[in-house]
Amino acid sequence: MLEKIRVVLVNTSHPGNIGGAARAMKNMGLKSLVLVDPKKYPHQDASSRAAGADDILENAQVVATLEEALAGCSVVLGTSARDRRIPWPLLDPREAADRCLHTWQADHTAEIALVFGREYAGLTNAELQRCQYHIHIPADPEFSSLNLATAVQVLTYEARMAWLKYTEQPTHMPEIEATGMLGTAPATHESLELFYQHLQQTLIEIDFLDPAKPRHLMARLRRIFGRSQLKKSEVNILRGILTETQKAARGEIIQRRGEHV
Amino acid sequence: MLEKIRVVLVNTSHPGNIGGAARAMKNMGLKSLVLVDPKKYPHQDASSRAAGADDILENAQVVATLEEALAGCSVVLGTSARDRRIPWPLLDPREAADRCLHTWQADHTAEIALVFGREYAGLTNAELQRCQYHIHIPADPEFSSLNLATAVQVLTYEARMAWLKYTEQPTHMPEIEATGMLGTAPATHESLELFYQHLQQTLIEIDFLDPAKPRHLMARLRRIFGRSQLKKSEVNILRGILTETQKAARGEIIQRRGEHV
Repeated sequence: MLEKIRVVLVNTSHPGNIGGAARAMKNMGLKSLVLVDPKKYPHQDASSRAAGADDILENAQVVATLEEALAGCSVVLGTSARDRRIPWPLLDPREAADRCLHTWQADHTAEIALVFGREYAGLTNAELQRCQYHIHIPADPEFSSLNLATAVQVLTYEARMAWLKYTEQPTHMPEIEATGMLGTAPATHESLELFYQHLQQTLIEIDFLDPAKPRHLMARLRRIFGRSQLKKSEVNILRGILTETQKAARGEIIQRRGEHV
Repeated sequence: MLEKIRVVLVNTSHPGNIGGAARAMKNMGLKSLVLVDPKKYPHQDASSRAAGADDILENAQVVATLEEALAGCSVVLGTSARDRRIPWPLLDPREAADRCLHTWQADHTAEIALVFGREYAGLTNAELQRCQYHIHIPADPEFSSLNLATAVQVLTYEARMAWLKYTEQPTHMPEIEATGMLGTAPATHESLELFYQHLQQTLIEIDFLDPAKPRHLMARLRRIFGRSQLKKSEVNILRGILTETQKAARGEIIQRRGEHV
C-alpha cells in the first residue's frame, strides 16, 4: 500500500522542508514525491536535509499545477488548518491512514495522494476542493501550524502504522506486560538509582557480582525492576532486604545469633 | 497529563533541531524542555526553527548530565534504534503514549520523561539503562534514522492523541460544526418543501417522472438532499438550475438559440 501513496507538496518555499519531507517519507517506506511549482528546487538545502533520502529527491516529479500532480489518483487527501469556510469530510491523521488502507483494500492499483500546502498559507480553498477528504492534525489550537516536514512525518507515520498492523507486522519487539500500576505512587528516578546502587553494592558484598567481570548483570536486573514499575513503598521494602543482606555479608547475623544462643 | 511530560534532548549537535523540537512540543501542547549538554545553545538556528515556540526555548532547562535532567521523574522512556544488545521493554510510540497516560492515571503528580539521543549516535547503552522503557519508532529498517525534531513530533503527537481520546476531546472537528462555521443558515423546512415541489414539477416537465407511476422517486431524492443538509444559499442555486431546466423543457433555450443564429 505504501508505494501507492504519493506525497504532493504545493508551492513549497523552503527547499530544506522538501528534503525533510523526503527523509520522513523514506523513513516510513514511501517513495513517490511530487513537487508542484516549488520556489527553489533543486537546492543544496533539500539535499542536506534529506540526509540520505537522495533517491526520493532524484525521482521526485516536478510539475506546474496541482492538477498534474494528482493525475491518476483515486483518492486525494489534503491537509487543512482548522477553520475552513467550506465544510468538508475532515479526518484526523489516524482516520486518514485508515482511509488509505480501505482504498488499497478495495483496489490494489488505486493511487492515493496526500497533499500538503504552503508553509505559511497552506492550501487554497480551490486546492482543498480538489481533495475528497481534508486531514487536520489535532494540534493545540493556540499554536497549530506544524513544520511541513514534521506534518509529512506524522501522516506517513500513521500510514506505516496502519500498514504494519494490517499486515500483522510487529510495530515493536515483544514486551512483557507491566503490572501493578494501581495503588501507591511510583518511585522517583532518584530513589530507583539509589536502589540500584544499593543493589550493586550488596551484590558485590555477597560476591555475586565481580566488578571486574560485570557480565551485564546490572543491566539485566534493571530490566527486571524497570518492567515492574516499582512503587515507593516497594523500593523501601527492597532496600530493607538489601540492608539486611549487607548485614549478613558482614557477619552481623551470625554474630547476633551467637549472642542470642 | 501533557504538562507532566518533559522532553529531554541529550547532547544535541544542531541547534536547529532544538528549535524544531520546541515547535513540535508546542504544537502538541507540551511545555517542558530539558537540554543535556547541548553542543551549541543558545543559537540563532534554534530560535528560527522554533517559529514562535520561543517560550519553550526561554523556559528550557540546560543541565550537564542526564541524571539532572531526570530529577523527580517516575517514568523514563528513551528512544532507541531497533537492535540493542540488551533486550528491554520496547514500546512503539502509541504504546509509549498509553504508558504515559497510565502513569498519569495512577498518580497525577508523577513526572514523565521522553528522552532523545544524539542525532547520529542516539543514546548510549548506559543512558538507555536509566530508562524503564525504550521506544522504537517503527521506521523502515533500511532507513530508520529519523530527524530529531520529527521524532519528537511523532512521540508528542501520540501523547496528544492519547490525551484527547482519554478526555473525550475531538481529534478533528465534526463535520456539522464545520457546516455551522459557514455562517449561512440552514434551509428552512418551508423552503425545502418548495424546492421539492419545484424539483418534482421539473422532473415531470422533462418526462423523467410519471405522476401516474411515481415509483418512490421523490422519496429517494428527498433522502439524498436530506443527508446533505442544504443551506438557504444552496437551495437557491438548485432552484435556479430547476428554473433553467424548465425553460429548456419549454423549448425556450432552443428558441433563444434560434434568435441568435
